[in-house]
Amino acid sequence: MVQTKLTTVSDKKKRTITKAEELAKGQREISVAEFFTKNRHLLGFDNPRKALLTTVKEAVDNSLDACEEMNVLPDVSVKIIALGGKEASVADRFVVTIEDNGPGVVKKQIPNIFAKLLYGSKFHSMKQSRGQQGIGISAAGMYGQLTTGKPVKITSKIDPKRNAMYYELHIDTQKNEPEILKEEEVEWEKDHGTKVTIELEAKYVKGKQSVDEYLKQTAIANPHVTLTYISPEKKKTNFPRVTEEMPAEAKSIKPHPYGVELGILMKMLKSTKAKNLQAFLKKDFSRVSPKIAKEICDKAGVYEKSRPSRIATQEADNLFKAINITKIMAPPTNCLVPIGKDLIEKGLKKEIDADFYIAVTRPPAVYRGNPFQIEVGLAYGGDIPSDHISRVIRFANRVPLLYQQSSGAVFKAILGTNWRNYSLSQSKGALPTGPLIIMVNIASVWVPFTSESKEAIAHYPQIIKEMKLALQEAGRQLSIHIRKRKHAEHEEKKKSYIEKYLPHVGIALKEILNLKQTEEQKVEVNLKKILEKHRE
Amino acid sequence: MVQTKLTTVSDKKKRTITKAEELAKGQREISVAEFFTKNRHLLGFDNPRKALLTTVKEAVDNSLDACEEMNVLPDVSVKIIALGGKEASVADRFVVTIEDNGPGVVKKQIPNIFAKLLYGSKFHSMKQSRGQQGIGISAAGMYGQLTTGKPVKITSKIDPKRNAMYYELHIDTQKNEPEILKEEEVEWEKDHGTKVTIELEAKYVKGKQSVDEYLKQTAIANPHVTLTYISPEKKKTNFPRVTEEMPAEAKSIKPHPYGVELGILMKMLKSTKAKNLQAFLKKDFSRVSPKIAKEICDKAGVYEKSRPSRIATQEADNLFKAINITKIMAPPTNCLVPIGKDLIEKGLKKEIDADFYIAVTRPPAVYRGNPFQIEVGLAYGGDIPSDHISRVIRFANRVPLLYQQSSGAVFKAILGTNWRNYSLSQSKGALPTGPLIIMVNIASVWVPFTSESKEAIAHYPQIIKEMKLALQEAGRQLSIHIRKRKHAEHEEKKKSYIEKYLPHVGIALKEILNLKQTEEQKVEVNLKKILEKHRE
Repeated sequence: MVQTKLTTVSDKKKRTITKAEELAKGQREISVAEFFTKNRHLLGFDNPRKALLTTVKEAVDNSLDACEEMNVLPDVSVKIIALGGKEASVADRFVVTIEDNGPGVVKKQIPNIFAKLLYGSKFHSMKQSRGQQGIGISAAGMYGQLTTGKPVKITSKIDPKRNAMYYELHIDTQKNEPEILKEEEVEWEKDHGTKVTIELEAKYVKGKQSVDEYLKQTAIANPHVTLTYISPEKKKTNFPRVTEEMPAEAKSIKPHPYGVELGILMKMLKSTKAKNLQAFLKKDFSRVSPKIAKEICDKAGVYEKSRPSRIATQEADNLFKAINITKIMAPPTNCLVPIGKDLIEKGLKKEIDADFYIAVTRPPAVYRGNPFQIEVGLAYGGDIPSDHISRVIRFANRVPLLYQQSSGAVFKAILGTNWRNYSLSQSKGALPTGPLIIMVNIASVWVPFTSESKEAIAHYPQIIKEMKLALQEAGRQLSIHIRKRKHAEHEEKKKSYIEKYLPHVGIALKEILNLKQTEEQKVEVNLKKILEKHRE
Repeated sequence: MVQTKLTTVSDKKKRTITKAEELAKGQREISVAEFFTKNRHLLGFDNPRKALLTTVKEAVDNSLDACEEMNVLPDVSVKIIALGGKEASVADRFVVTIEDNGPGVVKKQIPNIFAKLLYGSKFHSMKQSRGQQGIGISAAGMYGQLTTGKPVKITSKIDPKRNAMYYELHIDTQKNEPEILKEEEVEWEKDHGTKVTIELEAKYVKGKQSVDEYLKQTAIANPHVTLTYISPEKKKTNFPRVTEEMPAEAKSIKPHPYGVELGILMKMLKSTKAKNLQAFLKKDFSRVSPKIAKEICDKAGVYEKSRPSRIATQEADNLFKAINITKIMAPPTNCLVPIGKDLIEKGLKKEIDADFYIAVTRPPAVYRGNPFQIEVGLAYGGDIPSDHISRVIRFANRVPLLYQQSSGAVFKAILGTNWRNYSLSQSKGALPTGPLIIMVNIASVWVPFTSESKEAIAHYPQIIKEMKLALQEAGRQLSIHIRKRKHAEHEEKKKSYIEKYLPHVGIALKEILNLKQTEEQKVEVNLKKILEKHRE
């Protein structure tokens, strides 16, 4: 009896389970590593060719950032070996090793930095750097593991007096946590630095989107770097530094009030250590003086001595609106390290054989509270083919962008510029045609890429506007050059006409006026003088 | 003395802190919510206009998925109200409410589902659904919070016999965890369902990328859905269902061996419950019979009774290679729910006034272990403008894709098809020109979008190939129609010539042969017969 009753209860229970309850059983957390394993194309691992480039790029970017943090001139080597006894062009598996002379990574952090996604130091600091998300190098390791089962191998030395550490790591994608397969102290001849080795399925192809091109463009935009490259074809290339001067050190800044959103403002109000509103605005933002802080509070109708944590949603909304109608100085420049007009022109000259070079570095501007700065370089004429559309070279914080040219802000800004104003031809909706190379660099504490694979810059109106202004400024200079050149060509033509026809005029005059040989020459000289004078 | 010594030690300590140790202090975990707050453009919140569409889209997609899970015909209402007493076209803040008659969400899961990124049931199941990442609706709520400070509001009822639950939620972006601001039982007249309200900064614009267009296209690809829409202009639109039949239920499947990567295979070998390799291959994959499993093991040179957890990296690699050279049946179709040839043609007919409609549903194929199926519909002639390039309508699992047309696989497949073979004109690198609308739908257990904002499909070669095949098949049908039409037009012309000139010929003959009226008519009729016969 008892048993029967129990069964009935259990049956009833079964019947009352709703669809929502059934569905709830499957609802759970998704690890970010699982997410990116499935969505690897978001990180630049769409195909074997791109995977090779992305792996090299992530490691080199990290190396350059690290060396600059330490203020040491970067010596970075890249070595790619084709596996399976195959020729480089047909191999499908490679070992990639990148070595630098940076500060190294402390033992405790090596597993996190190299085998955990969304882990790093750059995300939370408002400071210009190549890496920013704490994803790249771990994703490259994860891709290697996924395609070859092999761990990522790291050697790191942080102090000349201590031994280096050697690690072999897997990533546990279900937890997004590192798995240490091997950990040991090893001897390493250098004082400090990091070496990363990743084995992965990939394809080695040359051309505009190749590792070779990436390294070449990196050398252009980073004249203080020495790069050594051993290609899968075992060819060694050296890109020696052309300046011994380190770029200015990038400083961390506080957020600028313009562009900070209401939701962020509310979060900051809750977590600030400042005792009152005025102090909060001054201390937690850049470019807010006590006077400006008071002005903002007054405009918002909020007492400036209020406790920040006590500010209600409506008051926060008022503050937010007040900020955006108050005149506040542009953010400090020292968080940005543009390449600079001179070095851009040098870089272009080194690489491109042209008649005319011009570079423009715009003053810093702000999008969503993030300072950024646009630089443009143009190279015109010379060996550049004149019947093609212009070539575009894009950089973000000195990192070459090789993919998705047509979907980013740079492309939009170039298309949105009327190049016919600058003596160039341009079809509707197309890049200008002519012997022109356009280089654009954005320097920012936070570059808004259209995807995590960092290929193109998102269409923020402020960014596109600055790019257009820089392009226009450079375009005007170029236009002056082109017009001068055209004028000179025109003059040259006229002059050559005079040279060519004058003797005939002389002969004609001689015959008409029946002049002597000496008289004829005299007339000719005089005539030339008159004509030249007139022409000028 | 002691003090001095201590100071010295501390000084020494300070001196020996390496750069790596200094940097380590800043190295820490980044929450996925912080990541997506900064990278909101990845989720479709680039600008206020798109934010409105994305918010509606995420909520409607969830509602449709939920109703289909419960096998109930979806009744979904969308209401958008402009705030601040402004006209819809100039307002900058809106309240969006989406309500459905789905199963609801259990109390315990409401905060996670609506205020935690990467949380859901769809990611880990291999089953066709609109949502897949567990990001969308939480991201919409997060965007609302960021721009207005307001919480997301949810009402959910899972059982006619119980009260509904009402929640107001914030998301703690630093932890990616929900914050419950309000939680209460409320009465709600319906039996079950979910209502979500989000207040956000946005912009209401009509046109090809609008909420209005999204709902219209959703109605086309989902003929079993009834949609009610109250626009910010307070206009009410009804899209009633045209079929009472639910789409076939999508089944969950196991992964197909083709395309499963080495890394994934190794992970599966470690965590399987199967006792030996043969059983593992049979149980954990779809379409692997014991015979096929044995064949794979033999080809790999691995004993089929080995314990899966004991398989070493090299053996796993051999198995991986063996899988890819073994003939295995295509994955089961029942995990995919295409719209179907008939309903596509009906949908197109309902929406577009054309002369000719054709739809093609391809058999399922596989990319990276994920089954997918491509459908193409063409509408030609009629009211479609004939001097424009073709219009493209894209869907993924019946969800309209309104952005980034030119960067996805659909565009590439259409450009890669030679439409001149199908009697259409096409400029190099352009869409075909003519009175043509091209509709493409991909049905898959996992649609590989190029970004989390789900705008375009990534360039997987297998997907592009299937799209091309479907386009070609439809193109051939279209070509037959166009040629027939041209032929008919030609015939019509010839016929009209006969009709036009025959009487004159009759008159001429009459005069030449001096015929009577009756004879003339007789000759004319006979002549016409002969000519018509000849023409045919």
